[in-house]
Amino acid sequence: MTKVAILGGSGYTAAELIKILLRHPGAEIAAVTSRHEGTPLVSEIHPSLTGRINLRCEPFDADRLVARGVQCVFGCLPHGVSMSTLPALLQGGIRVIDLSADYRLRDPNVYAQWYGESHEDLAHLARAVYGLPEIYGDEIQTAQLIANPGCYPQTAILGLAPLVASKRIDLHDIIVDSKSGVSGAGRTPKLNTHFPECNESVSAYAVGKHRHTPEIEQALSDVGGEPVEVIFTPHLIPMDRGIFTTIYAMPRRPVTEEHLLELFRDYYAQAPFVRVVAHLPATKDSAGTNFLDVTARIVRGRIIVLAAEDNLIRGASGVAVQNFNRMYGHDERTALL
Amino acid sequence: MTKVAILGGSGYTAAELIKILLRHPGAEIAAVTSRHEGTPLVSEIHPSLTGRINLRCEPFDADRLVARGVQCVFGCLPHGVSMSTLPALLQGGIRVIDLSADYRLRDPNVYAQWYGESHEDLAHLARAVYGLPEIYGDEIQTAQLIANPGCYPQTAILGLAPLVASKRIDLHDIIVDSKSGVSGAGRTPKLNTHFPECNESVSAYAVGKHRHTPEIEQALSDVGGEPVEVIFTPHLIPMDRGIFTTIYAMPRRPVTEEHLLELFRDYYAQAPFVRVVAHLPATKDSAGTNFLDVTARIVRGRIIVLAAEDNLIRGASGVAVQNFNRMYGHDERTALL
Amino acid sequence: MTKVAILGGSGYTAAELIKILLRHPGAEIAAVTSRHEGTPLVSEIHPSLTGRINLRCEPFDADRLVARGVQCVFGCLPHGVSMSTLPALLQGGIRVIDLSADYRLRDPNVYAQWYGESHEDLAHLARAVYGLPEIYGDEIQTAQLIANPGCYPQTAILGLAPLVASKRIDLHDIIVDSKSGVSGAGRTPKLNTHFPECNESVSAYAVGKHRHTPEIEQALSDVGGEPVEVIFTPHLIPMDRGIFTTIYAMPRRPVTEEHLLELFRDYYAQAPFVRVVAHLPATKDSAGTNFLDVTARIVRGRIIVLAAEDNLIRGASGVAVQNFNRMYGHDERTALL
Amino acid sequence: MTKVAILGGSGYTAAELIKILLRHPGAEIAAVTSRHEGTPLVSEIHPSLTGRINLRCEPFDADRLVARGVQCVFGCLPHGVSMSTLPALLQGGIRVIDLSADYRLRDPNVYAQWYGESHEDLAHLARAVYGLPEIYGDEIQTAQLIANPGCYPQTAILGLAPLVASKRIDLHDIIVDSKSGVSGAGRTPKLNTHFPECNESVSAYAVGKHRHTPEIEQALSDVGGEPVEVIFTPHLIPMDRGIFTTIYAMPRRPVTEEHLLELFRDYYAQAPFVRVVAHLPATKDSAGTNFLDVTARIVRGRIIVLAAEDNLIRGASGVAVQNFNRMYGHDERTALL
Repeated sequence: MTKVAILGGSGYTAAELIKILLRHPGAEIAAVTSRHEGTPLVSEIHPSLTGRINLRCEPFDADRLVARGVQCVFGCLPHGVSMSTLPALLQGGIRVIDLSADYRLRDPNVYAQWYGESHEDLAHLARAVYGLPEIYGDEIQTAQLIANPGCYPQTAILGLAPLVASKRIDLHDIIVDSKSGVSGAGRTPKLNTHFPECNESVSAYAVGKHRHTPEIEQALSDVGGEPVEVIFTPHLIPMDRGIFTTIYAMPRRPVTEEHLLELFRDYYAQAPFVRVVAHLPATKDSAGTNFLDVTARIVRGRIIVLAAEDNLIRGASGVAVQNFNRMYGHDERTALL
Repeated sequence: MTKVAILGGSGYTAAELIKILLRHPGAEIAAVTSRHEGTPLVSEIHPSLTGRINLRCEPFDADRLVARGVQCVFGCLPHGVSMSTLPALLQGGIRVIDLSADYRLRDPNVYAQWYGESHEDLAHLARAVYGLPEIYGDEIQTAQLIANPGCYPQTAILGLAPLVASKRIDLHDIIVDSKSGVSGAGRTPKLNTHFPECNESVSAYAVGKHRHTPEIEQALSDVGGEPVEVIFTPHLIPMDRGIFTTIYAMPRRPVTEEHLLELFRDYYAQAPFVRVVAHLPATKDSAGTNFLDVTARIVRGRIIVLAAEDNLIRGASGVAVQNFNRMYGHDERTALL
Repeated sequence: MTKVAILGGSGYTAAELIKILLRHPGAEIAAVTSRHEGTPLVSEIHPSLTGRINLRCEPFDADRLVARGVQCVFGCLPHGVSMSTLPALLQGGIRVIDLSADYRLRDPNVYAQWYGESHEDLAHLARAVYGLPEIYGDEIQTAQLIANPGCYPQTAILGLAPLVASKRIDLHDIIVDSKSGVSGAGRTPKLNTHFPECNESVSAYAVGKHRHTPEIEQALSDVGGEPVEVIFTPHLIPMDRGIFTTIYAMPRRPVTEEHLLELFRDYYAQAPFVRVVAHLPATKDSAGTNFLDVTARIVRGRIIVLAAEDNLIRGASGVAVQNFNRMYGHDERTALL
Repeated sequence: MTKVAILGGSGYTAAELIKILLRHPGAEIAAVTSRHEGTPLVSEIHPSLTGRINLRCEPFDADRLVARGVQCVFGCLPHGVSMSTLPALLQGGIRVIDLSADYRLRDPNVYAQWYGESHEDLAHLARAVYGLPEIYGDEIQTAQLIANPGCYPQTAILGLAPLVASKRIDLHDIIVDSKSGVSGAGRTPKLNTHFPECNESVSAYAVGKHRHTPEIEQALSDVGGEPVEVIFTPHLIPMDRGIFTTIYAMPRRPVTEEHLLELFRDYYAQAPFVRVVAHLPATKDSAGTNFLDVTARIVRGRIIVLAAEDNLIRGASGVAVQNFNRMYGHDERTALL
């Protein structure tokens, strides 16, 4: 039984993590921290957890977590806060799965460029492992610090990895057009996520500027062994959950849909949470699960990859537990089916 | 051509008012005020108005509005702010249609009880006319100050008026169960109206405490000539617009559905915006319009009235223009069909 | 390990059942039947089950199910079809949890009156147990045939049982105003559940005529030991899942909210899936779970009970597995947390 | 006053047309036809029209429409039905605005290829004018037969026309990724548009096969004077109305965003319903209107055009009335603001 703590307990990813971990036979939730006034019950912050968990949210205190024997921490803190909070835990020997963006980009200059501030924890950044199990599975097992991947990047990276790995496509002519449910924007009320603003509406945002762009490119460059460049356009969709990503890539030589699907099936033969399907997926098929569904088509000579996932589970808390499972020697699927 | 101004221009009711008034042959929008920093274009606050209106939002200045010849003001200010803002205009001779709750309750003690603060403008309160044209139509024509009715109350009052006026029902055994779209909660982002919180969810709120309760009772008591008491329960529904109200009332003597519908049709024979229908209405039928649809049924001896309206138009900005039409001698339907 | 079969495998309740049973350590899904042409994969009918289950939908054949050692059948057939299909299984010694309405109403005359056709299987009807574990828990353990309760009735019955059992309320002055997500209407496309018709709209339907009315009354009459009469009004809400029920009841003598909540807490002290809460629940809190959340308020002397559940899980497939757990000696919560 | 008739009166585009035409000072709705049993009131088919129109749906009869003096017909029939129905009216001298796809593709071979059947009315096909006023405005004024444009194509054509006309982009490297509300799929209930299937879900459909592809290419080839090829991917979004189209095009030479917006503003200087905006549009901004909002960005050297419209108004019934206005000498905006 591994004692775990969750930092930043008031958001959506924390709530999902708690629900998954409550089903996990090898994890015990020892603490949930948040910046709330006082120490409200976790179930007061998340009424859906009423009767499920008796813990109170407590202020973050690294020493206290170490003293209580916490072995693994899930960080659900905002970026920037993560890199100033987690070092104390890491130095205390705790393993960390960080759901923020702080440790995802290996190059601190790229971090500074996209996040607008300098990285404060270069020491741990250098040792962080990008927590996408289908790509970095071996390193994850022994890592102390996992940079849990972003929601959008997983659809783009896993949707393109078989094509990039096999040198099938032009690495500089890739378009990633993503559509996300609103929970991806977090739990802090803002005008653009106020119900009457975003309901019954579609819009693009952060066009050409979304911070998941370099994350996608870094992982795909790892896969391909050479630089990959993508154009990434996120859209806000009036639904709670789900990301649907439509990818346009130019094949280097002609290929059939049949071969494409075979290529994907081979690539993900050992990946229990990537479902290569022949039909066109819908986000609803994977909603509430850790599955990522993917298929491919060829239209007028171009490859179109279509990938769907639940942004809070596969896109955040589910894959975090998938990483936890690898780190602690559990079957990768534990608590996730 | 009547010069009008809109106070509190950044909310949903202001946007709807502007759209309706732009179609009105007898109104010219001379000013829109708001508390925004600077003087943004109205269309920057409401992108849907791009290309429709060239005004900028300006700070409120009573003298300036008077000096510019504004004759009629639509107040879309929060309650509390209205009663401290409007007196200066009223004293300047401007006619006011106030969409806030400040002048709706004739008894300042009732106001204090439900709104938690003393009324500050008793002089004008005493002369305000409750702007529900189907009930107070004659007084509206000559009023200087209209207290535009609340969204929920209109469904309850118009759903019950024929029964109360005809002494058909027990005036102390009335249940009003209302279901409202989220725009009724206004444009300020809050957790309970944050998309991932209220989407795909129904909840009741302010049970037994909603401020529209005394407003419903006051108007129905006027209609019935004796005190009326209601239990009012509002619910939040995951949709932009629309209120559906289900009313349960106890008849004093047996009545048939046929007679009920006839009673309603007679009562609203001259009311162009109340549609007495035989079928069960849906809020979608009246969405985007100034119509209020109503029908009645009898179930196990009790009368069930079902009423539906668009909360922003019939429930606020549409009925405001209906009042404007009566005040300025236009056909009641002008700009509303 | 109990071998189970699911009849009527193409609907929403079947899909939910399969998902729950796949997590159940004491159940093995041996067969799924449906009336589809050919024998499609279950995952072709329900793409969300891709990679989860390898069975094909097969035509119903009682002998074959018996021969294959099926011990327990979940019936997800339409009413009318159930009572002509299930007798063959019951005679073969199979235990049945029937999610249709066919065996819920003990009095065949009441069935005929509300369902418009005569009951065809009086023999089994006489022995069926109404599968609401919080009320009929003991009988469920030994029953061969469970009439799994309707979605709406559970909110009404469990919301009223503590009040009826304690003789707290007038049994003939009860109003049940329910709001349901659209999945409650089933998976067959119809105009009223066509997205652009019911999205962004609220409407009432089957006013005074909904077939769940006698079901509510039968169970509450059992609880109270004397006839109970309710007025039941269902409404269609633009969301996938969830039922919110607002109940108005008249206390026989004054009572405080505190006492009410205590009464509820006592009554459900042993019920792991009824959460008596002090706050106002939202359907989202119980969505995707087998919990039913309930609270009570007093408004102007009347009791208002507010209850929420997920209509497909608590309202159908979850409670079916809760019944299964009782029938086969599992912890009541198995596979349901 | 022009006497008009609407064919195929039971769908969404017909309802929108009626609402717009009721506000039109130069049009009188003389007949609405449909294939319904009997002759139901139009308001029985569309309850939102209760009290607005007293006509009954009648069976189609060309002679009767001619005899009654109908001068202009709006065809809301399914493709295939249009081309077998409209010739009789055209021969009778009636002007026709056909909202189906039957007369949009000039080349009958292309029609046969994409629609899977031969064109039956080559005579009129040869004389039909594609009813996109911003491109074919002059021809529309004198046309007898208008092929009203498809909903998706308008966003793609108007989003690309300034770039194609000015030879700014590579005409064979264009990707059109569109997101549409569900009303675009029509009013006939089907599984994929059943509320619980498509609500809270995004999916792509008809990838590489959507019939609007050749329509987009034909108009853009007209604009550019040489063949244009696009990859078009439509997606279904859980909302009633609105299309958001994201277009990716490769500039032939470097260009700035400022120049792009200027190019668009110049191109649409005389087009009252195309709003070239600097901000990122949302479909909600143009919902319920005849406006098409468009902007452009440059990301890593590629041009991204973002366009939004209401699929039923701008995408169908609104542009049909815009065409009507041009045909009958009204201000283009009549009844559309």
